Amino acid sequence: MHSVRFTAETSSNGVVERDFMVGEVPGVLWSPVSGSDHAPLVLMGHGGGLHKKTPGLMARAHDTVTRWGFTVVAIDAPGHGDRPRMAEDEQARADIQQAVAAGEIERFESISVRYSNSLAERAVPEWQATLDALQELPEIGAEAPIGYGGGMSLGTAIGIPLTAVEPRISAAIFGGGFFAHEALLEAARRITVPVQFLLPWDEEYVGRQSVLALFDAFASEDKTLLANPGTHRRMRWVGVDDEFLVRHLGRAGTSPA
Amino acid sequence: MHSVRFTAETSSNGVVERDFMVGEVPGVLWSPVSGSDHAPLVLMGHGGGLHKKTPGLMARAHDTVTRWGFTVVAIDAPGHGDRPRMAEDEQARADIQQAVAAGEIERFESISVRYSNSLAERAVPEWQATLDALQELPEIGAEAPIGYGGGMSLGTAIGIPLTAVEPRISAAIFGGGFFAHEALLEAARRITVPVQFLLPWDEEYVGRQSVLALFDAFASEDKTLLANPGTHRRMRWVGVDDEFLVRHLGRAGTSPA
Repeated sequence: MHSVRFTAETSSNGVVERDFMVGEVPGVLWSPVSGSDHAPLVLMGHGGGLHKKTPGLMARAHDTVTRWGFTVVAIDAPGHGDRPRMAEDEQARADIQQAVAAGEIERFESISVRYSNSLAERAVPEWQATLDALQELPEIGAEAPIGYGGGMSLGTAIGIPLTAVEPRISAAIFGGGFFAHEALLEAARRITVPVQFLLPWDEEYVGRQSVLALFDAFASEDKTLLANPGTHRRMRWVGVDDEFLVRHLGRAGTSPA
Repeated sequence: MHSVRFTAETSSNGVVERDFMVGEVPGVLWSPVSGSDHAPLVLMGHGGGLHKKTPGLMARAHDTVTRWGFTVVAIDAPGHGDRPRMAEDEQARADIQQAVAAGEIERFESISVRYSNSLAERAVPEWQATLDALQELPEIGAEAPIGYGGGMSLGTAIGIPLTAVEPRISAAIFGGGFFAHEALLEAARRITVPVQFLLPWDEEYVGRQSVLALFDAFASEDKTLLANPGTHRRMRWVGVDDEFLVRHLGRAGTSPA
């Protein structure tokens, strides 16, 4: 088992940011400057083609740390951010760009589904190894409640299979912006923890019906779908229940209600 | 034009309840004991077969009055509550019961659509006359911001055509539990005010797709769909943005932000 190797530390606005490696996987941990031990830990995923320090993810992470005193972790997906791209990654990116440029939506969908499946198969054990390593840190330990804190497109295409197999995750936020293929539907049927699902209503390429079928598939008794106009690249969320995670993970320094 | 004739007044838990008539239409007005003048006015609709003092509606009305200091009004729909049933009402009820008992879902749908259209055609001008009369009251006046505060099934089947033609309504909450037929879709396309739409995910008879098409049809730039498991007769709402009306109507004694 790999340990967490911290490689850099900065802090701003009351948030400590620590870069780390777990084996070959680079990650980043955000926590309050005056951190409480065993605060809830929120895993955040980045979108396809992006990385662990994408501005939108950073903003959500800072908000989660400063508002709730939680710890947030993000890692680069395979072939993303600081990680080397394999031949498969280069090929998939080139094929996706070409399919979009040519307006070949069906080919775009089939390549995207195959590639995001492949990324999820690699990313799920990486997330699990990251959790194993983080739980060895005294400030996290086995006691910190763990939630999946969302991320559109690839962040959810990885988050759903991860939550399906990872009993340490006790609540999850997912979002739209990807093709809800059969493997994801099967994973969703195995998820029973509370789910908040954020759906951009006007995705350009991704069929709304397939994402609604995915929401339908979650076995969770407590699941909420929230849709607003827009696409996952251009959203103004309104009316989102931003106490979802604190309700299920508890406040820093306390147990869930 | 008819005036408001108050017929009874009681109060409990800080809420004054005043029964009234506007012409032949019976209504009820809930307001804070220590009322502020020109507080936002929220119109609430009851479900099919129910009436203006149905427990669920009463609970929402009391909550809206005590929490925000708003005034809430409900009226009986034609053929409902304290109002006489016409031959059409008796016939529609008997036909609906028979169709449901026989498991004839398509006949249930066609009768329900025809009947709820007829109810909405009668109820919309009644709501407008009620608003005209209420605005003559000094504590409401023309200054009180007005919102449609929801109601499942018939409450929305009436609320959508009302909001489509009534410029005094500046924000609306709607809900599922009814057949989203073409006349409702046409009305929805004319609605541009902010909309919050509450969708019971597991309706027994009403197709989910038709209700999603209705949400799609609203012309509002600010519209939010929230879905939770359950049917409109048996729901536990989770994660609802209960500041929706106060955000758009403003707080009692102030103007909207």
